Amino acid sequence: MTQTLLAQAIAIAERASAIPMAHFRKPMELVAKEDDSPVTIADRGTERFIRDALAEAFPQDGIFGEEYGVTEGQSDATWIIDPIDGTRSFITGHPLFGMLLGRLVAGVPQIGVVRMPALNETFAGARGQGATLNGAPIAVRQTRDLAQAMVYINEAEKIEAADPVRFARLCRVGHTRRMAYDCYPHALVAAGQIDVVVDCGLQPYDYLPLIALVEAAGGLICDWQGKALTLESDGRVITAATPELRDAMIALLAA
Amino acid sequence: MTQTLLAQAIAIAERASAIPMAHFRKPMELVAKEDDSPVTIADRGTERFIRDALAEAFPQDGIFGEEYGVTEGQSDATWIIDPIDGTRSFITGHPLFGMLLGRLVAGVPQIGVVRMPALNETFAGARGQGATLNGAPIAVRQTRDLAQAMVYINEAEKIEAADPVRFARLCRVGHTRRMAYDCYPHALVAAGQIDVVVDCGLQPYDYLPLIALVEAAGGLICDWQGKALTLESDGRVITAATPELRDAMIALLAA
Repeated sequence: MTQTLLAQAIAIAERASAIPMAHFRKPMELVAKEDDSPVTIADRGTERFIRDALAEAFPQDGIFGEEYGVTEGQSDATWIIDPIDGTRSFITGHPLFGMLLGRLVAGVPQIGVVRMPALNETFAGARGQGATLNGAPIAVRQTRDLAQAMVYINEAEKIEAADPVRFARLCRVGHTRRMAYDCYPHALVAAGQIDVVVDCGLQPYDYLPLIALVEAAGGLICDWQGKALTLESDGRVITAATPELRDAMIALLAA
Repeated sequence: MTQTLLAQAIAIAERASAIPMAHFRKPMELVAKEDDSPVTIADRGTERFIRDALAEAFPQDGIFGEEYGVTEGQSDATWIIDPIDGTRSFITGHPLFGMLLGRLVAGVPQIGVVRMPALNETFAGARGQGATLNGAPIAVRQTRDLAQAMVYINEAEKIEAADPVRFARLCRVGHTRRMAYDCYPHALVAAGQIDVVVDCGLQPYDYLPLIALVEAAGGLICDWQGKALTLESDGRVITAATPELRDAMIALLAA
């Protein structure tokens, strides 16, 4: 049943990819949102497509999307949509924007899909059923020593602005560091390419769809204190390949 | 003549792409260089391929590559090779590593190619003949006000470590900022997607191949003082769409 759901979720995300790609690197009308983050016609069109596809395939389920908010359902399942995760990448012609689709049942993440339209990559996982990249199995690495870890730091300028001392400490951690953004580094942990991601400023539609993917690949995802992510989390996220790396990163961020 | 040279350079870079792609996201032997930056078998194999192809096509020309150094030529032309620009991306399974190929004649950049193997994108330009992305013409944007600019900051942690105050200032500049690495942001300026890149810590093989591409697209590239880039430059680079943005960025970095 969930296998079918996962396949359906993947198919919806892959079909929806044509919408952002039709606008990518084309002149576009920018529409200011209340919080002034850049959002495009592509963003809204993509979510509209996904919502319509979900409503047709799963009429009982609720939907929570970045652009159009909550549609209550009759089941205990809710789909979470971030139509374009990384709008700043998207509007700067940078191919690392993603599309996020997750399914929670009674609040527990069951399915997570990270679709990269410009890369034609689909990372997907279902609770208890493993994770895949374009259909091929993926799993996290087994790095346990933070000094050996490949660490991605997302939203560097937000972390620097909020806490320059903690930021300077992050800039010296691990074996290799890389500043990045958005969903892709979390997917790279799931794919066994890197070991840790530190992120901040995320909204629930940014992190909830990641959970089932990361966990199905054998990884861990939590907030900076190590607590499970919920709708009420503060948007600060650690994704780690192993418990040892997660704990080391929590300690480093707490110090 | 130069048109033929450019087409040949593009063909060599595109053929060479198969080598890094054969190693990308595969387990690989890491070989430590003297400066401890990560370098792979793929890096050396790629440069070997390009050097051999250049030696066959242009036996009179000199070659200067990251991995195998200088081969003196009999003409006044030198090819510059960076086989994998962005080895940290490459070894972390991140698709934004590039391949750089440039040609200087009597020290003047005539040809510049930025090849992105994992994206299958080729940005190329020749002095006086315009620039292309996968064969389609590209040109810089005409943004003149830094407050409206899309700014990419490369090597954020190096800038932060060397000068936290200047880094904090960069984190607040422009309309949209993005931390990034390596050649791709410079190519995005040439392609008219973003407006400015600030970079540092570059080697001659990192920046010399960019010059003809950026200039052929109508952009400007210089060091942080506005001086032309040469073999002796200090590795700090500004790429800008317009003179106004270049001058504003020089002033901001000097303040």
